[in-house]
Amino acid sequence: MRILGIDPGYGRTGYGVVETTGNRIRPLEFGLIETSSKLSMEKRLLQIYDALCEIIDRRKPDSLAIEELFFSKNVTTGIGVSQARGIVLLVAAQMGLTVAEYKPIQIKQSITGYGKAEKQQIQEMVRMFLGLQDVPKPDDVADALAVAVAHAHTAPFYSKIKSNP
Amino acid sequence: MRILGIDPGYGRTGYGVVETTGNRIRPLEFGLIETSSKLSMEKRLLQIYDALCEIIDRRKPDSLAIEELFFSKNVTTGIGVSQARGIVLLVAAQMGLTVAEYKPIQIKQSITGYGKAEKQQIQEMVRMFLGLQDVPKPDDVADALAVAVAHAHTAPFYSKIKSNP
Repeated sequence: MRILGIDPGYGRTGYGVVETTGNRIRPLEFGLIETSSKLSMEKRLLQIYDALCEIIDRRKPDSLAIEELFFSKNVTTGIGVSQARGIVLLVAAQMGLTVAEYKPIQIKQSITGYGKAEKQQIQEMVRMFLGLQDVPKPDDVADALAVAVAHAHTAPFYSKIKSNP
Repeated sequence: MRILGIDPGYGRTGYGVVETTGNRIRPLEFGLIETSSKLSMEKRLLQIYDALCEIIDRRKPDSLAIEELFFSKNVTTGIGVSQARGIVLLVAAQMGLTVAEYKPIQIKQSITGYGKAEKQQIQEMVRMFLGLQDVPKPDDVADALAVAVAHAHTAPFYSKIKSNP
């Protein structure tokens, strides 16, 4: 199974594609889609759209994993992030990927077994699961890989439940 | 000039296309893009995307007018609305429409001359400007036409400023 993990943002969208074979997870590609603050919001969203289509075309993931959004502090940033998140969901629907959403606590739980794990712990576990030498930078990329790994751990379990109603 | 006014939402997106000739504004088409709550968010966003592309293909507007978003009460609804708004902006960028954003107070001011006008007053003025027999229903459609009319009033003024730097 190939999973595209996304950490959306209008300025920076982190992405990571991983492949699972049995119990093993292997990173295929990860990186950052960056847009210039000099561009209008609609042009930034279009850049994100084009970049995502290109990644999906190239790597052919089966599913998209993304964190559930909830707002806390900065509402204005939240609007921009939600707009970018809309683009991510649209691309998934257009290109036929199934979408899996996870709460932050579910991602932590699935990766470290502990729902209140620190960011550093999660990043270190993700690094180990993926056999990487270093923790991917910046955080947007690490977070995108984390949700992809969380889905890799969770998806087989969910599909068993679904096929045994 | 042809203007597409949009009032975005994941359940209901109101739209209205108007054409300006000199001081006159004429409605070409208005209506509601509705999506089923039984569908996943990504499928709803895809329906909005497809419907907007189809309207723009048919009516060929030059610009898109949309209200600036700000959240007050329901943050969860706000995330969904922002995601839908992202789709609207994306389509505008893809299809080469210029995007004009207006604050609620600017829309009220431009239509009634008074920034604190009531919803009913605005709807009645929009009805008159467009020569319609009745106020368009539901509010999503009336709001979409309102921002289109506001842009029709404001755009010539802005373009004069821009061409006289």
